[in-house]
Amino acid sequence: MKIISSWSGGKDSCLACFKAMQQSHEISCLLNFISEETKRGCFHGIDSKLMKAQSDAIGIPICQNEVSADMAEYEKEFKSAVLNLKKEDINGIVFGDIYLLEHTNWVDRVCGEIGIKPLEPLWNLKPENIANEFIDLGFKAIIVSAKADLFDDTFIGREFDKDAVRFLIEKKICPCGENGEFHTFVYDGPIFKKKIKITKTEKIFKDGFWKHWFLDLKEYYMEEK
Amino acid sequence: MKIISSWSGGKDSCLACFKAMQQSHEISCLLNFISEETKRGCFHGIDSKLMKAQSDAIGIPICQNEVSADMAEYEKEFKSAVLNLKKEDINGIVFGDIYLLEHTNWVDRVCGEIGIKPLEPLWNLKPENIANEFIDLGFKAIIVSAKADLFDDTFIGREFDKDAVRFLIEKKICPCGENGEFHTFVYDGPIFKKKIKITKTEKIFKDGFWKHWFLDLKEYYMEEK
Repeated sequence: MKIISSWSGGKDSCLACFKAMQQSHEISCLLNFISEETKRGCFHGIDSKLMKAQSDAIGIPICQNEVSADMAEYEKEFKSAVLNLKKEDINGIVFGDIYLLEHTNWVDRVCGEIGIKPLEPLWNLKPENIANEFIDLGFKAIIVSAKADLFDDTFIGREFDKDAVRFLIEKKICPCGENGEFHTFVYDGPIFKKKIKITKTEKIFKDGFWKHWFLDLKEYYMEEK
Repeated sequence: MKIISSWSGGKDSCLACFKAMQQSHEISCLLNFISEETKRGCFHGIDSKLMKAQSDAIGIPICQNEVSADMAEYEKEFKSAVLNLKKEDINGIVFGDIYLLEHTNWVDRVCGEIGIKPLEPLWNLKPENIANEFIDLGFKAIIVSAKADLFDDTFIGREFDKDAVRFLIEKKICPCGENGEFHTFVYDGPIFKKKIKITKTEKIFKDGFWKHWFLDLKEYYMEEK
């Protein structure tokens, strides 16, 4: 089946995409929503240029859609973007949801309403197993945001490796950060034809209702593999 | 110790208040934040008048604070309200958090910064046990809001009883709704001197980024016990 991959730049959407490819689906594009205000991913805060770099490194085109700050509009904008891509004979869309029922119910309802099949290859798997499988497969990611009431600034910029997974389990935090506890940026892995080498970063403290640590990926280059 | 009870109108803050009273703390007031725009509770959406009715029924004064829609201001407004009450020789504040680390970390940090002791009597208890204990103690509550991607409109207005708890567990939804899956309104119980009889309600569908079913409690009266 020809499908779209819902793409945030983080480990779960990347692993879901990989698993869909292993199930012989052809990924026609990575679908990504960015804020028209910040030009960054709506949920993970990753700069749109860096998600374009992932698309180039993987060799699958990315479809980036700017959306307004008004989250009430998001469902309409999501449907419109998917319907637009659906014209090109696409039948499915893969997501990286794990256990949040409200997310997957939203996906089921919205995809049902526009006649596209949702795939959820990570659904109901144990978060610890997902995290370790991602690492064992050779994917490489770094932590790019984290809630400041859960983490100090040393967690930001850290490699998402087995040590990080153990640290999260010890702290009783979901090792996949399914509740938005932290987000990652994937820079290499088995579906990457090139590797993204990050050379300059900056840690930023974002003060809102919930406080976040945030890693701005300022400079990078593409490395042949 | 003379303490404040953080109050949302729902079962967890009510049970936490009850447990603090059992530990011989004196509750000097219920502390509640309402939106200056809607005049309803910031998190549960309960009309401010109904929380005033709870305070009258229980016989503990309520301190209601209007806050702006800008949630970035909430921490400041919370601190200012607590510092104002603290002048009256209050040393602690009781919350109904169960397992969300980011909530309790926020509480610990913010209370630490203004020198008031946070009490968390429900912390780390099993949600199923909390729900059943609340019911076994004789508290009475109804479901007043629920995420529409998890529930249909028949869940709204339902009694929060053992059947509801079994239904939630079967659906694999937290029986306390700790992730905001649903909210309740407490209308009777062992700390209530009077009972709030709800006589007219209306079910409303709220369409935002997440869709909610919402029960507007339109008419009620106080019944002697």
